[in-house]
Amino acid sequence: MAPPLRIGIAGLGTVGAGVVRMLARRKDDIATRTGRKVEVVAVSARDRNRNRDCDLSGVRWFDDALALARDPDIDVFVELIGGSDGIAKAAVEAAIEAGHDVATANKALLAHHGVALARAAEAKGVGIAFEAAVAGGIPIVKTLREALLGNRVERVSGILNGTCNYILTRMKDEGLSFESCLDQAQQLGYAEADPTFDVDGFDTAHKLALLASLAFGVQPDPEAIHVEGIRSITLADLDAADELGYRIKLLGVAARSGEAVELRVHPTMVPKHWPIAQVSGVTNAVAVDGDAVALTLVGPGAGGDATASAVVGDLCDLATARPRAVFGWPAVNLRPAGKPAIQRHEGGYYIRLAAVDRPGTAAAIARHMAEQNISLESIMQHRRGRPHGGDRADSAEDPAPVVLITYATTEDAVRRAIAAIEIDGVIASPPQVIRIEKD
Amino acid sequence: MAPPLRIGIAGLGTVGAGVVRMLARRKDDIATRTGRKVEVVAVSARDRNRNRDCDLSGVRWFDDALALARDPDIDVFVELIGGSDGIAKAAVEAAIEAGHDVATANKALLAHHGVALARAAEAKGVGIAFEAAVAGGIPIVKTLREALLGNRVERVSGILNGTCNYILTRMKDEGLSFESCLDQAQQLGYAEADPTFDVDGFDTAHKLALLASLAFGVQPDPEAIHVEGIRSITLADLDAADELGYRIKLLGVAARSGEAVELRVHPTMVPKHWPIAQVSGVTNAVAVDGDAVALTLVGPGAGGDATASAVVGDLCDLATARPRAVFGWPAVNLRPAGKPAIQRHEGGYYIRLAAVDRPGTAAAIARHMAEQNISLESIMQHRRGRPHGGDRADSAEDPAPVVLITYATTEDAVRRAIAAIEIDGVIASPPQVIRIEKD
Repeated sequence: MAPPLRIGIAGLGTVGAGVVRMLARRKDDIATRTGRKVEVVAVSARDRNRNRDCDLSGVRWFDDALALARDPDIDVFVELIGGSDGIAKAAVEAAIEAGHDVATANKALLAHHGVALARAAEAKGVGIAFEAAVAGGIPIVKTLREALLGNRVERVSGILNGTCNYILTRMKDEGLSFESCLDQAQQLGYAEADPTFDVDGFDTAHKLALLASLAFGVQPDPEAIHVEGIRSITLADLDAADELGYRIKLLGVAARSGEAVELRVHPTMVPKHWPIAQVSGVTNAVAVDGDAVALTLVGPGAGGDATASAVVGDLCDLATARPRAVFGWPAVNLRPAGKPAIQRHEGGYYIRLAAVDRPGTAAAIARHMAEQNISLESIMQHRRGRPHGGDRADSAEDPAPVVLITYATTEDAVRRAIAAIEIDGVIASPPQVIRIEKD
Repeated sequence: MAPPLRIGIAGLGTVGAGVVRMLARRKDDIATRTGRKVEVVAVSARDRNRNRDCDLSGVRWFDDALALARDPDIDVFVELIGGSDGIAKAAVEAAIEAGHDVATANKALLAHHGVALARAAEAKGVGIAFEAAVAGGIPIVKTLREALLGNRVERVSGILNGTCNYILTRMKDEGLSFESCLDQAQQLGYAEADPTFDVDGFDTAHKLALLASLAFGVQPDPEAIHVEGIRSITLADLDAADELGYRIKLLGVAARSGEAVELRVHPTMVPKHWPIAQVSGVTNAVAVDGDAVALTLVGPGAGGDATASAVVGDLCDLATARPRAVFGWPAVNLRPAGKPAIQRHEGGYYIRLAAVDRPGTAAAIARHMAEQNISLESIMQHRRGRPHGGDRADSAEDPAPVVLITYATTEDAVRRAIAAIEIDGVIASPPQVIRIEKD
């Protein structure tokens, strides 16, 4: 049997302690299956005296994560500190410099500094494993980096933030407002006190940056992503989507667009029959459309156990083989993702307008759409006030909503049409525009 | 760059020709991403003159698969001949003997001879990669063998046969009989002229044997699996399942049961909200319940492109790393799966009885259930003849069906109760019994 793989873990929160427990619990099977013991030999955290419910006897303690990262008696440095900069970044750099493989759950670090870190790691001949950084326990990194190499990937899309999916699911199922559901998510610990990072789409964008790199060979770059969150989604939208055969999900989408890759995070209408449409609550899902196979992977996107499972899977890989290129393509070959150009996005649109109730309104709306060569697949005039329960009764005083579904057009055309409609004064409030994702 | 990985392919049907084309189409990306060229250098098939729409110029031709398998100038032997014995088995044995890694899509070969082949391969230090043998393009072998090593798997269940899922989907959606749907499946090429292997569950059983080995470390053994097919499923069952909140799927299920593993293939009632319940048509899906994560993977289970994608993924793995143990555990450690003991199965049951319309029938049924300590969750008395269209009108002449849903009980108790009911003469035809799968 090969010598043990010696693990140093920096950060002993829920995930770090979970990794320690999982490696202890599964040590015999892991040794049998990988041909090597995988042993935690050193750890680092802020408070040595905190009770973490994991056995650290015989494990060396470091107060300083940097010192652990440089320790010559570890083989793999596991970074579970978090944060895109500061000590997490310094420690990963130090571990690479010391010739250690790295495993991390830190999406922010890799989304912002992935190219530089991957170059450094590949120059040193070490790996950075990050299955835990995207969609928790779902093995999407491995799938894109290894299993689908026969495919030219055309699109990767995913529900990558459990908080948002929980809120959208509750809103729809129970007729509650965004605010009530956010409140409940916070009480259940699914959302932070400051929910911005989740509900405004930034967390999804970090994960999407990593998926795009794996799928298309572009440099991870959050700046290249068009990002919208879910705060604007109302019950009226969720109900209209349902009637029209769709669900509304916060999706991260990376899609090939000629030589470029279109990267966007926004509330999206997806056909109800898509597997991804049926994913509810905090569960995550990722769909990959390749030229040979289309896959959907569904599973837990967060939580100590799921994330620890991903870290341990990575450690078992490092125990058995030299790592591949960090993002699946040598870092020097990664090309810039380019700037977001959402104006050039092509697809169908859902447009909900609070139309004022006077003659000529419908004609004005239709004329401005036609002027932009936008063809309408359907027009739905909602009855006023459709209280099905919950917060739905709130909508009883809204102006008459008109819902339009367009055939494929461009973002630019939609924006011009809406600007013209707004100037006409036939709508009472800013319109809601939701992009539709189709096969 | 490392020297090219030299591939020899035996069998140039849809999948084999698809692999040749895919490796040609993707050769630059594969070389960049794996650090090696992956090149087809030799092939073997029955008829050299058949047009296969793939470029074989510069590729050596073998009339004899065995000679190709022994060829010293290949690194990997790809077996796409098929069949559990005969030339496929002999060629794989020869390739291993010659020190070549093997990639295969042959589920029957591995289900029947996997233990012996894995022992031979591991003794030689070569691998047998078989992602293509289970669920086509879904990377479930990699997921179980690598990604989930941190998990103790409790259950693996899957829709592993597209033909059966197509038939059950069509029956339900269009109210057609089993026979009409089988007929259509045959016309569309989804079912063979002799459909036994698919519709009676044997194909699913072969795949399940491989999944069980990967998940639980048992020897693949089709004889250890309780197998029932879908011929007995009627529209009445599909409609009743729908009313009760379930879908009926042909599932392969491998579940931990104490120290043993329960292995069974049969029509199964699954809750509608499970991702696997929503998989329709020829699509496959596999759900894994581990102690840390629960995953569902959905994708194409068959077809040239999907299967070729799995083979090419395996070849890229072989290009970058020495293979792991064939079934994820060293073959010498695999323990026998044991004999099927469906009588000891515990779970809920759906029981549909064609009750004769006379006093005392309901009482007799209820008494025999109670005598076996079977508690009933629900009893549903169907109205006679509920023609919603299609072949549903056929059921109008049936005796009054009574549908029982039991709480968790044992197979043995259910069988004893039904035997007693049959002796009483209160039912007009053999009862339908479908096991329910729950969280």
